[in-house]
Amino acid sequence: MIIQLKQNFSQYDASAIENKLALNKFVFLHVDTGKKQYYVCNGKHEIDLRIFGGLKGVDDIFRVTDQYKLVSSQWRIEPTVIDLGDGIKIGKGNLSIMAGPCAIESEDQVEQIVAHLVKNKVHIMRGGVFKPRSSPYSFRGLGLEGLQMFSRVCRNNGIKIITEVMELNQVDDMIDYVDIFQVGARNSQNFNLLDALGGLRKPVLLKRGISGTLEELLQSAEYMYSRGNDQLMLCERGIRSFENTYRNTFDINAIAVLKEKSHLPVIADPSHGVGIRRYVPVIALAASVAGADGLIYEVHPTPELARSDAQQTLNFEESARLIEKLRSFPIAVCN
Amino acid sequence: MIIQLKQNFSQYDASAIENKLALNKFVFLHVDTGKKQYYVCNGKHEIDLRIFGGLKGVDDIFRVTDQYKLVSSQWRIEPTVIDLGDGIKIGKGNLSIMAGPCAIESEDQVEQIVAHLVKNKVHIMRGGVFKPRSSPYSFRGLGLEGLQMFSRVCRNNGIKIITEVMELNQVDDMIDYVDIFQVGARNSQNFNLLDALGGLRKPVLLKRGISGTLEELLQSAEYMYSRGNDQLMLCERGIRSFENTYRNTFDINAIAVLKEKSHLPVIADPSHGVGIRRYVPVIALAASVAGADGLIYEVHPTPELARSDAQQTLNFEESARLIEKLRSFPIAVCN
Amino acid sequence: MIIQLKQNFSQYDASAIENKLALNKFVFLHVDTGKKQYYVCNGKHEIDLRIFGGLKGVDDIFRVTDQYKLVSSQWRIEPTVIDLGDGIKIGKGNLSIMAGPCAIESEDQVEQIVAHLVKNKVHIMRGGVFKPRSSPYSFRGLGLEGLQMFSRVCRNNGIKIITEVMELNQVDDMIDYVDIFQVGARNSQNFNLLDALGGLRKPVLLKRGISGTLEELLQSAEYMYSRGNDQLMLCERGIRSFENTYRNTFDINAIAVLKEKSHLPVIADPSHGVGIRRYVPVIALAASVAGADGLIYEVHPTPELARSDAQQTLNFEESARLIEKLRSFPIAVCN
Amino acid sequence: MIIQLKQNFSQYDASAIENKLALNKFVFLHVDTGKKQYYVCNGKHEIDLRIFGGLKGVDDIFRVTDQYKLVSSQWRIEPTVIDLGDGIKIGKGNLSIMAGPCAIESEDQVEQIVAHLVKNKVHIMRGGVFKPRSSPYSFRGLGLEGLQMFSRVCRNNGIKIITEVMELNQVDDMIDYVDIFQVGARNSQNFNLLDALGGLRKPVLLKRGISGTLEELLQSAEYMYSRGNDQLMLCERGIRSFENTYRNTFDINAIAVLKEKSHLPVIADPSHGVGIRRYVPVIALAASVAGADGLIYEVHPTPELARSDAQQTLNFEESARLIEKLRSFPIAVCN
Repeated sequence: MIIQLKQNFSQYDASAIENKLALNKFVFLHVDTGKKQYYVCNGKHEIDLRIFGGLKGVDDIFRVTDQYKLVSSQWRIEPTVIDLGDGIKIGKGNLSIMAGPCAIESEDQVEQIVAHLVKNKVHIMRGGVFKPRSSPYSFRGLGLEGLQMFSRVCRNNGIKIITEVMELNQVDDMIDYVDIFQVGARNSQNFNLLDALGGLRKPVLLKRGISGTLEELLQSAEYMYSRGNDQLMLCERGIRSFENTYRNTFDINAIAVLKEKSHLPVIADPSHGVGIRRYVPVIALAASVAGADGLIYEVHPTPELARSDAQQTLNFEESARLIEKLRSFPIAVCN
Repeated sequence: MIIQLKQNFSQYDASAIENKLALNKFVFLHVDTGKKQYYVCNGKHEIDLRIFGGLKGVDDIFRVTDQYKLVSSQWRIEPTVIDLGDGIKIGKGNLSIMAGPCAIESEDQVEQIVAHLVKNKVHIMRGGVFKPRSSPYSFRGLGLEGLQMFSRVCRNNGIKIITEVMELNQVDDMIDYVDIFQVGARNSQNFNLLDALGGLRKPVLLKRGISGTLEELLQSAEYMYSRGNDQLMLCERGIRSFENTYRNTFDINAIAVLKEKSHLPVIADPSHGVGIRRYVPVIALAASVAGADGLIYEVHPTPELARSDAQQTLNFEESARLIEKLRSFPIAVCN
Repeated sequence: MIIQLKQNFSQYDASAIENKLALNKFVFLHVDTGKKQYYVCNGKHEIDLRIFGGLKGVDDIFRVTDQYKLVSSQWRIEPTVIDLGDGIKIGKGNLSIMAGPCAIESEDQVEQIVAHLVKNKVHIMRGGVFKPRSSPYSFRGLGLEGLQMFSRVCRNNGIKIITEVMELNQVDDMIDYVDIFQVGARNSQNFNLLDALGGLRKPVLLKRGISGTLEELLQSAEYMYSRGNDQLMLCERGIRSFENTYRNTFDINAIAVLKEKSHLPVIADPSHGVGIRRYVPVIALAASVAGADGLIYEVHPTPELARSDAQQTLNFEESARLIEKLRSFPIAVCN
Repeated sequence: MIIQLKQNFSQYDASAIENKLALNKFVFLHVDTGKKQYYVCNGKHEIDLRIFGGLKGVDDIFRVTDQYKLVSSQWRIEPTVIDLGDGIKIGKGNLSIMAGPCAIESEDQVEQIVAHLVKNKVHIMRGGVFKPRSSPYSFRGLGLEGLQMFSRVCRNNGIKIITEVMELNQVDDMIDYVDIFQVGARNSQNFNLLDALGGLRKPVLLKRGISGTLEELLQSAEYMYSRGNDQLMLCERGIRSFENTYRNTFDINAIAVLKEKSHLPVIADPSHGVGIRRYVPVIALAASVAGADGLIYEVHPTPELARSDAQQTLNFEESARLIEKLRSFPIAVCN
């Protein structure tokens, strides 16, 4: 059950509600998103919710049977829109595109990609500066300095930034340079990190775990939302399966199902979803048609020379062709 | 290596080729598709294929590094087209639709569905009369008599039939009433059945195994092709994964990859691929956009009352809406 | 619900029972195992089973909530014992060993292996004459003639035979030469084959599907049992997973769980379960300790030269050491 | 390649080695475990390692073809022994037992369990104070204060402690109260945490990821080892599969394979490995026989009332019976 409070509720009203919840054996959490305030309540018994309806300060009450509450569409039907400022929004019915390299490598690289994005009317650039790598001996990214350069070039060109945060200690240093924090597949159940990001008022894109269920993904989003951060996106990036022809198995079902189960925008990552460059555009297209609110994919001036993920990264020509193709389909693409 | 023989090769030519193959330690198989004849040759060493090029009777030679040979696009680039007669073809660039109930239940049911198909310009009806069921206590289909009725109604209305064959002993009884034999996921590696179907000159749709790799699917097709049946289709129908929100995980990657690795038409089964009725249309759409040559899905006058698979079966209105939607997309749909 | 009939029930009793079942909307099947007769009944409603208890001819009644009925330990607590004759039994508390090559290759090979088995007091030899192979170009076994030779050598030495049947048409030809029919992983849901084997009074070892659930395995056994064949064994042979360090992932949990859910003997196949020769003995040992009633593994005079599965086959020395080790453990091993 | 340095190598020697490595295009890392010092070197070309052998300060050189280097048994054959002090060691050939509740709940609970362990000669107690939970609304543990109480009771009774660390910020607060840090399955690729733990000189038990490959597990251990922490253990805790009869699928193959690929001790977690209480002992037994150096399992005075994981937790009687059974087997169990 979610109890939505009136804007002008008093501390006295809150106490009365909390007492009644405790009396009825609900475990509850007070959530303040900055826009509205709620009690998220977990109880074991069937109860007539109307006993809360009459309390002062209560605006509305929602029965939510899903294990996750605040991210469920049982509670909120209206889709969440992420507003990045400057008219750039995600989730309002148009397809948002986020593109960029696996790893930020140099100022020159960033500038070339920014130019490619501007030319193709793409407003959000991805690029890692802290890279999670299976081996300790691999390139781990340019770090904070790289981010500052990345940010400077993008802001000079009206481009928003999405980049991965791996550890809660990085948040404070990164926050001024980032428009969207990305939580990677390996951190999809790093609950301390999720708690920390839940305390921010900054958009977060949460990737599904390598073998994460949709239920787990939604619960991880709930971690953040229940701390008050309602600017969240869910990302399908392929799951691990027995099939080894491709790096991951893109789960197209997940796009359709997440769109129904949650009001949060759903983003598709075709680059990791298939992991082989020449199939990335077709998976991007399929995911868009299946209802994705956005795409995040890898592009690089010279994919063959990229310092990581060279196998799944498009070049500018392939990227431009993909964007053009998306715009030729009867789906609305952000301009 | 595949050696393609000239139309007018002599038995003497064949012997000379076979001797040379044996001398070079190739294991080979003679394949006669009714249209052309080949030797499919497996050897361990790198050999200069030109030593075969000069032999009499040899039309062409193809190096094929894939484990499967005849179904590989390394050998044959031109897509295979399945001709069902009466102008109904699969794989010539347009999207073919096959729809019908999980199980044939009655003449009235077949007539209603046929009317639905005719009205929506769909030319192929699916429907099982021999049903593979996990439990021995479930309904196993109407059997041969059901097939005869099914066939009669369809032929009276210009509709072609696809239905599952479970066992090689059924082939002879079924063959006159069937336009396409379907091999189900559980029989995807029933090699005796594949051998038998390979001996026919009748189209076969081969479903991917429940956890079958693409390599295994292509090898199973190779079983049939190497016996001379070149009228084959591959079908992606969802794989088994850890995710339990849906019955199967539709592998959209497989559509794109199979289209590249083989010249055979690739059919998508969104009904089994997701297993939940309200998501079937969106998966159908995504698969079509990803390059599928056809769709096979379940439709029933009253899905709630269907004797099997009620959960994933569309009603007529949903089916008609899906077809209309497919036709609104920039992909060519068969009319 | 299972209704067990008295030995001397009359046709008139049977009719009365069937009428009462029909009246109460049960779908039922009459099963005759040669030893006893039953009605296996599937109904949707909760019913007081005692209304059947008073009927003439009824010996006992069992409530079985599992989807599978006759193979469930809810019905029958006493373990099933498979009697192969000559004092050789499987499932009576001792560990049975079945060993032999992947494929029967020659009389000399069979004789050498038989000598190895006799020397080590192993009474059952495995060996394939019909081999299911992913590729149509691989060696498919020596066929019926091979089986006849295999049988002759074994019977001359007091050794029982287990071999794979792939297709119901093979049953009649094989039955005289076989002591246990093996159903392979790829045929685990070949329901026509299961029906045919259910009609025999000959032991069958049923392998779990490549990604088969335990529920599916038990339902496949139910296919056979419900046709009257109660001499069945279940075999865990490793499942397909994301891990590629080994061919399959041996599911040790399955051994423990199947032993509890069913009264049928549970056999472990460590050769396929891990697929790498040097790990086979340790997996065999672990499976035995976990409660397996038997082991089936691959042994060959010269594994490196074996015509198939060379990677996972033990030589005589390794096999002898494994058997000795098994006998040193506090588990009873058949002598 | 790993270059092991002499104890008395000079800074001058080090520079000469580093120059030669750079000249030969090796990427290298200097590792100091407190006992010995090394260069771990990654290069792309085949090189005659002897060119480094003659350099001053070089003690030995090892060619390691595995992607992980320092944790590979290609480098170090002798098994790693973890010395917890007071004569309590893990990995020296005997089976170590670690048991305790899922979550530390109260001083009374800890005291009861400590008494159970002392009585059964078990020297290491597990118990979580920071609990990773899928849902933000679940009990997340008693935190630091709980740890301090847990530690006090254990030290008063000669019991060592293993507990999970979820976040690098917790390390400093926890370190004085902990004997072994546990990294959970969800943090198996939390590389920042691994880096931090690599900087300690405190034992760490690393759990395999929920769908982690053995390669990934070993690489994650390499993260820590390459920072100088050589007191590491690997833990198999079941993998996620399609089978839903149990919570996870215990991968017995992994025990055997990890023991061969690495010199680190391998610990089995049968509680999570099967997730159902009555099967825990048999899986524990099988894993021990398969070569595990230790077991970690859940025990609670009243499992039915445990605040988490009630389903998979043994009571004292079941735990005592398991220990007794382990000691009856021909494997050495720590006393």
